Amino acid sequence: MKRKLRFGMIGGGRGAFIGSVHRIAAIMDGQAELVAGAFSSDPQRSADSGSDFYLDPLRVYPSYKDMAAAEANRPKDERLDFVVIVTPNHQHFGPAKLFLESGFNVVCDKPVTFDLKQARTLQKVVERTGKVFALTHNYTGNVMVKQARDLVKRRKLGDIRKVLVEYPQGWLSSAIEASGQKQADWRTDPKRSGAAGCMGDLGSHAENLARYVTGLEITELCADLTAFVPGRTLDDDGNVLLRFDNGAKGVLHASQISAGDENALSLRVYGSKASLEWHQEHPNELIVKYPDKPREVWRRGNDYVTVPGQFTRVPFGHPEGYLEAFANIYQEVFRAVRAEVSGRRVPRNPDFPTITDGVAGMVFIDAVVKSASRGSRWIKVPQS
Amino acid sequence: MKRKLRFGMIGGGRGAFIGSVHRIAAIMDGQAELVAGAFSSDPQRSADSGSDFYLDPLRVYPSYKDMAAAEANRPKDERLDFVVIVTPNHQHFGPAKLFLESGFNVVCDKPVTFDLKQARTLQKVVERTGKVFALTHNYTGNVMVKQARDLVKRRKLGDIRKVLVEYPQGWLSSAIEASGQKQADWRTDPKRSGAAGCMGDLGSHAENLARYVTGLEITELCADLTAFVPGRTLDDDGNVLLRFDNGAKGVLHASQISAGDENALSLRVYGSKASLEWHQEHPNELIVKYPDKPREVWRRGNDYVTVPGQFTRVPFGHPEGYLEAFANIYQEVFRAVRAEVSGRRVPRNPDFPTITDGVAGMVFIDAVVKSASRGSRWIKVPQS
Amino acid sequence: MKRKLRFGMIGGGRGAFIGSVHRIAAIMDGQAELVAGAFSSDPQRSADSGSDFYLDPLRVYPSYKDMAAAEANRPKDERLDFVVIVTPNHQHFGPAKLFLESGFNVVCDKPVTFDLKQARTLQKVVERTGKVFALTHNYTGNVMVKQARDLVKRRKLGDIRKVLVEYPQGWLSSAIEASGQKQADWRTDPKRSGAAGCMGDLGSHAENLARYVTGLEITELCADLTAFVPGRTLDDDGNVLLRFDNGAKGVLHASQISAGDENALSLRVYGSKASLEWHQEHPNELIVKYPDKPREVWRRGNDYVTVPGQFTRVPFGHPEGYLEAFANIYQEVFRAVRAEVSGRRVPRNPDFPTITDGVAGMVFIDAVVKSASRGSRWIKVPQS
Amino acid sequence: MKRKLRFGMIGGGRGAFIGSVHRIAAIMDGQAELVAGAFSSDPQRSADSGSDFYLDPLRVYPSYKDMAAAEANRPKDERLDFVVIVTPNHQHFGPAKLFLESGFNVVCDKPVTFDLKQARTLQKVVERTGKVFALTHNYTGNVMVKQARDLVKRRKLGDIRKVLVEYPQGWLSSAIEASGQKQADWRTDPKRSGAAGCMGDLGSHAENLARYVTGLEITELCADLTAFVPGRTLDDDGNVLLRFDNGAKGVLHASQISAGDENALSLRVYGSKASLEWHQEHPNELIVKYPDKPREVWRRGNDYVTVPGQFTRVPFGHPEGYLEAFANIYQEVFRAVRAEVSGRRVPRNPDFPTITDGVAGMVFIDAVVKSASRGSRWIKVPQS
Repeated sequence: MKRKLRFGMIGGGRGAFIGSVHRIAAIMDGQAELVAGAFSSDPQRSADSGSDFYLDPLRVYPSYKDMAAAEANRPKDERLDFVVIVTPNHQHFGPAKLFLESGFNVVCDKPVTFDLKQARTLQKVVERTGKVFALTHNYTGNVMVKQARDLVKRRKLGDIRKVLVEYPQGWLSSAIEASGQKQADWRTDPKRSGAAGCMGDLGSHAENLARYVTGLEITELCADLTAFVPGRTLDDDGNVLLRFDNGAKGVLHASQISAGDENALSLRVYGSKASLEWHQEHPNELIVKYPDKPREVWRRGNDYVTVPGQFTRVPFGHPEGYLEAFANIYQEVFRAVRAEVSGRRVPRNPDFPTITDGVAGMVFIDAVVKSASRGSRWIKVPQS
Repeated sequence: MKRKLRFGMIGGGRGAFIGSVHRIAAIMDGQAELVAGAFSSDPQRSADSGSDFYLDPLRVYPSYKDMAAAEANRPKDERLDFVVIVTPNHQHFGPAKLFLESGFNVVCDKPVTFDLKQARTLQKVVERTGKVFALTHNYTGNVMVKQARDLVKRRKLGDIRKVLVEYPQGWLSSAIEASGQKQADWRTDPKRSGAAGCMGDLGSHAENLARYVTGLEITELCADLTAFVPGRTLDDDGNVLLRFDNGAKGVLHASQISAGDENALSLRVYGSKASLEWHQEHPNELIVKYPDKPREVWRRGNDYVTVPGQFTRVPFGHPEGYLEAFANIYQEVFRAVRAEVSGRRVPRNPDFPTITDGVAGMVFIDAVVKSASRGSRWIKVPQS
Repeated sequence: MKRKLRFGMIGGGRGAFIGSVHRIAAIMDGQAELVAGAFSSDPQRSADSGSDFYLDPLRVYPSYKDMAAAEANRPKDERLDFVVIVTPNHQHFGPAKLFLESGFNVVCDKPVTFDLKQARTLQKVVERTGKVFALTHNYTGNVMVKQARDLVKRRKLGDIRKVLVEYPQGWLSSAIEASGQKQADWRTDPKRSGAAGCMGDLGSHAENLARYVTGLEITELCADLTAFVPGRTLDDDGNVLLRFDNGAKGVLHASQISAGDENALSLRVYGSKASLEWHQEHPNELIVKYPDKPREVWRRGNDYVTVPGQFTRVPFGHPEGYLEAFANIYQEVFRAVRAEVSGRRVPRNPDFPTITDGVAGMVFIDAVVKSASRGSRWIKVPQS
Repeated sequence: MKRKLRFGMIGGGRGAFIGSVHRIAAIMDGQAELVAGAFSSDPQRSADSGSDFYLDPLRVYPSYKDMAAAEANRPKDERLDFVVIVTPNHQHFGPAKLFLESGFNVVCDKPVTFDLKQARTLQKVVERTGKVFALTHNYTGNVMVKQARDLVKRRKLGDIRKVLVEYPQGWLSSAIEASGQKQADWRTDPKRSGAAGCMGDLGSHAENLARYVTGLEITELCADLTAFVPGRTLDDDGNVLLRFDNGAKGVLHASQISAGDENALSLRVYGSKASLEWHQEHPNELIVKYPDKPREVWRRGNDYVTVPGQFTRVPFGHPEGYLEAFANIYQEVFRAVRAEVSGRRVPRNPDFPTITDGVAGMVFIDAVVKSASRGSRWIKVPQS
C-alpha cells in the first residue's frame, strides 16, 4: 500500500494537551497524515484548529456526528483509514461506537470509557465490527518497557514475587481547577472523569504497565483513596495493596498531590532469580538486579537489546522520550490498520493496547473505587 | 568529666555482625572505650573475642549474668558507664532489665524486645531506675534525616499528606538459613526473632524513620505479609497501608526477598507546600521538591544545613555513611550518660531513640502481625 | 501563509542515519512536508528511498544537480521552500552552494563543509544570496541548553571562569570501518570526513555548545589528538586545553574510543557566583550549583523555566529527547523560511546555528588539527 | 602482639581539619590509641587539645622537637609505635625526618613535603632508617578504587587508552583566606603550601589515584594553571594534558573555584575492551562499561567483589565513606608497623602510599608548575 494512512481526529483542538501528542506521534514517522477532524464541541474552535493544521475546511466539522456522516460517504481514495479520539473520558464511548459502526478503525485515549458498563458494551462493538481498536496506554510503547517484558517472558527473573508500581504527580497539589485550568477542570469533575480521579487517570496507566510487563492479573486488591485538596470530590491520591494470580503480592500507589513530583511513573518487578526496575522519567534505561552479580543498566539502542529495531529511531545515547514511545504505539497500530484496510488479516495479538486492556483497566478502576467506598476492604477483581 | 566513658558489651563476639558496628560507632570519636564484655553464650568464644579486643581477661565473662554481678562490684573509677546489648532479639529483655536494675545505663539494639509485653515491662524498669536507655534505630542518626525532620518541624512542607517509606533488601531471596548462615538463621526463626521476620527487622526501622521525621503517629494499618521462600515461617516480605493521626495516608513496604536490592531504605514525605525524599544508600543528600520552583539537593556539611555541627565529622563532599550515623546516636547517648554519671539532669527529649520509641516499634510490629493474621484487615493501632 | 512548508532532501536514503533524524524533526510539528529528493548517489537507491517516503517519482532525482535544475523550474505553488543536505562532509559544499544560488533556502548538517576554505566561500554565497542557511548543531535545540544560556546572559553565574565540555563516544573502539559499517566507513576516511575525525564530528559539536551557552570565543588552544585504533589515520580521540576571550580557561575532550560510552556530551560552566551543568543523555534537567545554597535541578516544562514555551511539546516529567531538540532547530528555521518565502524580513539573530557558527566550527577544527600536527603547541585561534 | 598500637600526633589540635580525620581513622577499628602529641605550635593550644583527647598531660608537648626528644626515651612498654604528621605542607619534612631518625615509624599527610628536593632527601632518610613511612593519599583506601585497580591488573579493560581524572572543588571561589579562614589561609600561601596551590592539594591526589588504578606513569604533560580569585598568588585552578608510558593519553583537571562543587574527585579509565568510572562522592559504586553488553554497577560488599574483605566494615547497601577509606590506609599501615615493631619483615609492596608515591607526587607538582611557568609548554616528567 504505497501511500500514507489518512486519519481524522475527535477533540484535540486549540488549548488541548493530549491532542497534539497524538498528532506528533501519528505523523513523525511519515506514515500517516491528518486530513479531517471535529476538534472541539465549539464549532468555531474546531474550524480554527483545522486551519492551524492546514486542513481542507470541508473536512473540518462542528461535531463528531457530522464528521462520521460526511466521512463515511467519501470516495475510497479519500476515505479515512482511522479516527483518533482524544476527548475527555465521558466523550469516548459515543464517538468510538459511532465510528466503529460506521466502518472506521479507531484509536482512543485512555481510560477507554466513562465506566465499566460502557467498556463492556464497546468491547462487543469492537468484536462485532472487526475493526481495529487501539487504546493509547502509551507507556508500553517504550523500548525498555518492552525489554522488561521480554526478560520476564524469557524467565530471566524466575518466578515473579513482588510488583511495585507507582505514579506520583504533583500538579494538582492545590485547587487549580478553581481557577479554570482546563486539564484540571475536567479531570476533577466526576461528571466528565468518571468514578475515579487520580486512579482513573494515573492508576489505570500503572495497572496497565504492571500487567504488560509481568503478564500477571490482579485477583484481589485493597484500596485507600483520598481527596486531599479541600473541595475536591474525586480522589487525588490512592494507595492499593495488590495480589496477583500467581501468588505474587504488590503495591500500586498514584497521586496528583505529590508536590514537586512530575510524571514519576515507575515499575519494579522482583523475581526469585533477578529483579528489574524502570523509571518513566529516564526511559532509555532498564536496571536489572541480581542477588549474586553486578547490577546491570540496559540501555536502549544497543545490540544486546532484544526488542525489534523498528521501535528505535535514534542510536544509543541519543535520548528518546515520551513522544517516541507514543509513536511506537501508533507504529503498531499502522500495521494493523494497513492490514485491515487492505483486507488482510489483522494481527491477533498486536503489540498495542486493545479493547481487552481497556476493559481490564475499567475493571481495575471499578474495583478500586468499590474497595475504597466499602471502608477499604479487600475486593476480589473479576477475571475476564 | 575529663575521661573517656567505659562500656561493656553483651554479645557481639567473633562472627557477629552488628557488634562490630556498635564498637566502631562507640569508639570512633575518642569518647568511649570498651573495657568488658560477655561476648557470646559460648564461654570460649567470649574469651577469644575479648582477646581480639585487647581486653583484660578478668573483665571478659562467660555470661551476662556473671558480668552484671562482677561489674556491679567494681570500684567507682573502673565502673562501666554503660552496657551495650547486641544479642538476637529474644535475648534483649533479660540483660537489659538486669543491667538497668544493677545500676547501669543501657544501649540496646532494635527491636527493643521479643514481644510487646516485654517492651512494656522494660519501659517500667527504665522509668523506675531512671537510667539512660537508648535504642539503636541508627538511621535517625543521619544528618540529612535530622535535616528532614527540621524542615518538617519548621513547616516548610506545610501539612503532611502522604508518607512513603520502604525498606527492600534481597539477601534472603533464597533459603540461606538452611545452609547455616548465622544472621539468616536467627532472623528467620520465630523463637529468636519474634512474631515477625522482615517486619520486625526492617519494618520497625521504617516505622521509626517515618515517625522521627514527620512527628506523626500511625493510627490504623492494613498489612499483607508473606513468606515467599519455601520452608520459611516468618514473613520475608510485607506491604502495609498506613493512616496517620493528622489524616495523612501512607504506604510502608519492606522485603528481604527483593533480589538484588541491598539496604534500600528510603523515605518520601509529601506536604501541602513541598515534599522531601531521602535514600539511605545516598545518605549525604536530601531532595526537596516544590510545586513552583526548582527542586533542591541539600547536601550534608554545608552552612545552610541547620542540623547542629556536632553530627558532622568531615566537610561537604567527603561522604559519611552508615557508621557515622550510628556514631551520632552514640554521641547523643554519651551526653546523656555523662550527665547521669555526673549526677546531672539527664536530657528530657534526647536526640536518640528511647524506650518510648522501642515500645512504639513493638506496637507497630504487633499490629502488623495481627492485621496480617486476620486476613489483612484494618487494625487500629493503640496510642500510648 | 496557510500551508505547510515544502522541502527536499539531498542524501538520507536507505541505510543512512542522520537523514531519518532530519525527516522526523522536520515533519513532527506538522509544519513541513517532504516532497522531493536526491537521496543517494546511487540512482536506484534514490528512487527506492523516494518510494519509501511516498513521494511522487517525478520529484525523486538521481543527483542533486538534476534536482536543482528541475526544481528551480517548478511553478510557485509547488516550489520547494527549503532543501536539507545530509550527505557526508565532503558533499556539503557542492549542493549547498548550488541550491543557494538556485534560490533555495538551505538546511545543512554539520560540520558545514569539508574544510575551512570551503566554509569561508560558502559564507560569501550565503551573504550574497540572502537566503536562509541553517546548520544543524542540534544540541542547542535542547530547552535546558537554552535555559543555561539564558542564566549566563542574565549574569546568574557572574563572570565565567571555567568551561568543561566533553563528548565521549565508544562506538569506534574497534576497527568496525574495516567490516564495511557505513557510518564508520566515511567518518574515518580523510577524503570524505576532512582533516579531523573525532574532532570534526564531535569536537565541533562540543565547541558549538560551549560557545552557544557561554557566548565566549576561544582565543587559544592546545590539542593532543590520537588515532588509537590500528590502521586508522584520522583522530579517534582528542584532548584540548582552551583559553577564552574573557580570560576563562577550559578543557574540551572528545572521543570515539571511550568504550561503553554512548553519546555522553556534557557541558559544565563555572562562574564567580554559580555554576551549571547539563548532560545530553539526561537533557530535561539542568543542574545549577551555588557556593552557599542547595544545588538546584531545573526541569524542562516548569513555569520557572524562562525559555519560550514554543520549544516545549509535552509537560514536565514527560521526557523529551534528541529528536525534539532537533525539531526545535527546525522550528526556528521555519520562522525564518516563512519570512523569506513571504518576502518579509528574515530574523537577524535567529535561534538556530547559521553560517557564522559553521565557519567558527571549521576555524576550531582547523586550529585543533594545526596544533596537533605541530607537536600539540598552543595555537591562536583567528577571530572573525 | 596482643595490644593496641600507640601513636602520637604532630599538629591536628583544636581548629584543625585533617587531624580529627586521622584520629578517627586510626582508632575506629580498635587497633590503635592516641597517647601523645604536639598538637600545635602554640603550646597552650597543644595542651588544651591534649586535654580534649583525655591524654596524660606529661605526654602533650609544646613542640615536635620536645616530643621527639622525650618520647625517644620512654620505656619500651610505653613507646610510640608510630607518629602521625598533620601539619601544613611546609612543616612535614622537619618532623618526618626527625622522628624517622629517632626510630619512629611515620604516617604523614600529603603532599609529602614542601618541594621536590625535600622529598628526595626524605626518601633517603626512609631508606636509611628502614622505618615504615606512609603517606595518606586516602582515596586509594576506597574498596571500589581497589576493585578498579584489580580489574585493570586482570586485563579486564584490555590496553588502557585514555585516563580522565578530575578534582573540582568550589570552596575557594571567593577570597575567604582574607577573612582568616584557617584552612584557606595556609593553603593559598606559597610560604606554607609550596609552589602550587590547587595542584598541590588536589592535583596530587588526582595524579596518585590515576597512577594507583592504572599502574601507568605520566611521561609528559602540559599544564595551564590560573589564579582566578583576585589577590591570590597560587593557582586555584589547573588543566593538564597527560601522556602515559604505554601511549595512553589523558586529562587531569582540578579546581578550587568550581563554585558549588564539593569534593568531586572522579576517575575514568578507558581500555580497548572495557572502561570504568569511579566517583568519590558515591564511593561504594564502580561503573564498568562495555562496548557490547549492559554496563555494570559493581557495589561494595558483594561476594563478586575481589578486594580482600578486611577493607569492608559493613555489608552491602550500608554506605561507607571517606573515613572508612582513610581507615583502610591505616589498617594496612598497622600491619606494617606491627611487623616492624615485632622485628618481623615489613611488607615490600604494602597497599598504602609510600615515600615512592610521595616523590612521584612532588615530581608531578614540580612538572606542572614548570610547564605552567614556561607558557604551558609540554614538559617531560622525569621517571624514577
